[in-house]
Amino acid sequence: MKIIIVGASGTMGKYLVSAFEKEHEIVKVSTNDGDIPTDITSPDAIEKMYKQAGAFDALICTAGPTYVGPWKTLTDKEFRKGIEGKLMGQINLVLIGQHYINPKGSFTLITGALTHEPQLKFANASAANGAVEAFVRAAAIELGNGVRINAVSPTVIENSPQYFPFFPGEIPTTMKALEYGFRKSVSGAGTGQIITMH
Amino acid sequence: MKIIIVGASGTMGKYLVSAFEKEHEIVKVSTNDGDIPTDITSPDAIEKMYKQAGAFDALICTAGPTYVGPWKTLTDKEFRKGIEGKLMGQINLVLIGQHYINPKGSFTLITGALTHEPQLKFANASAANGAVEAFVRAAAIELGNGVRINAVSPTVIENSPQYFPFFPGEIPTTMKALEYGFRKSVSGAGTGQIITMH
Ligand SMILES: NC(=O)c1ccc[n+]([C@@H]2O[C@H](COP(=O)([O-])OP(=O)(O)OC[C@H]3O[C@@H](n4cnc5c(N)ncnc54)[C@H](OP(=O)(O)O)[C@@H]3O)[C@@H](O)[C@H]2O)c1
Ligand SMILES: NC(=O)c1ccc[n+]([C@@H]2O[C@H](COP(=O)([O-])OP(=O)(O)OC[C@H]3O[C@@H](n4cnc5c(N)ncnc54)[C@H](OP(=O)(O)O)[C@@H]3O)[C@@H](O)[C@H]2O)c1
Repeated sequence: MKIIIVGASGTMGKYLVSAFEKEHEIVKVSTNDGDIPTDITSPDAIEKMYKQAGAFDALICTAGPTYVGPWKTLTDKEFRKGIEGKLMGQINLVLIGQHYINPKGSFTLITGALTHEPQLKFANASAANGAVEAFVRAAAIELGNGVRINAVSPTVIENSPQYFPFFPGEIPTTMKALEYGFRKSVSGAGTGQIITMH
Repeated sequence: MKIIIVGASGTMGKYLVSAFEKEHEIVKVSTNDGDIPTDITSPDAIEKMYKQAGAFDALICTAGPTYVGPWKTLTDKEFRKGIEGKLMGQINLVLIGQHYINPKGSFTLITGALTHEPQLKFANASAANGAVEAFVRAAAIELGNGVRINAVSPTVIENSPQYFPFFPGEIPTTMKALEYGFRKSVSGAGTGQIITMH
């Protein structure tokens, strides 16, 4: 398969690239790096990225910027980071990408346990996740040509120890479990699923 | 209690005003109408509305504009209707309103069954609902002074027959059930809840 991985230079992305590149052709995308540098907060940039990448079989997105910080000073301004990034960035990858993906292709987006298990300072990520998960269910009944869509929802991952203090008592998701979540979406037959590993 | 009802001129809002005004002082808000006309897509307008309303005990929001239309032509542009309206409009009512609400007050936002049960043409509402519901859970662990927050999630309501064809097989939510959902949030002790009636 030809798989576009958006967020390829990140903690999750790097791991997934090395896991998938043995069997698949990978197109690496991130803001300023990879095969096709692309800022997903811009629909025009997304359109250009797809034109350059050409027809593909799967899109994996692990790029989902959000605002992390104290609730007391949270305003519309800070909240926009996750709205433009993790939420509209990922939704636009699908709305635009459906016109470029091969029949029977798949989109796999990133969310996280924060949808249902909030943590202090992460309200923006919770909201973005909740939107993306509901969008995935809605898009699954709309997409044509056998194209599927799922989300992968880990809790804090084992390769991100810097986040452990914010997720007290959460048993970290192993990188292997994360990889298997993405494999299930890309190579399975499910659609509209939120693949959890927590 | 002094209760601000945003969306007071709408189908739900009118019903709730008449149900609650027997026991409570109601401040009616909608875009161009009511005691304090306010466009909730503008944070400045929300701030002004709260200043004019003065301290209050509960905010009910039934204003949640979204885009309804064919998936095939859905782009970033159409999607913004629900992002600015039902999603950021309601989130900003809370982020700003927390500085004006009385201790032990409550926020009650509107979502809907589309979060978990998508229907063709309503992907924008699904995404907005999902964001608002996850935000409600996150805000519940952050809000101070005993302030509570919940969402009410009906399916298509009996007073909106124009939507029945879009919700095949859905048993409409009665207006009484809808009212009781809001009563549970406003007068109960729960927080971070999604009060469903479907
Ligand atoms: N880490 C965890 O424990 C954890 C757990 C659950 C969920 N998540 C979610 O998973 C996602 C990825 O996490 P991560 O730890 O792998 O993040 P990360 O290490 O910060 O990597 C993020 C990746 O996304 C790219 N990116 C960021 N903004 C972008 C934009 N506007 N356009 C295109 N690419 C962009 C980055 O590229 P550049 O560096 O070039 O910008 C980078 O490749 C996030 O949404 C996060 O909320 C993370
Ligand atoms: N009706 C249903 O069957 C149903 C079922 C489940 C969920 N819902 C959700 O419930 C909400 C309300 O439904 P409804 O049928 O009562 O809607 P409605 O009859 O269209 O009323 C909407 C109300 O919100 C106000 N409003 C709209 N945009 C606003 C803005 N930007 N700023 C301030 N006020 C604004 C309107 O005032 P103006 O007219 O002055 O703009 C009106 O008072 C929607 O979010 C809908 O998705 C509806």
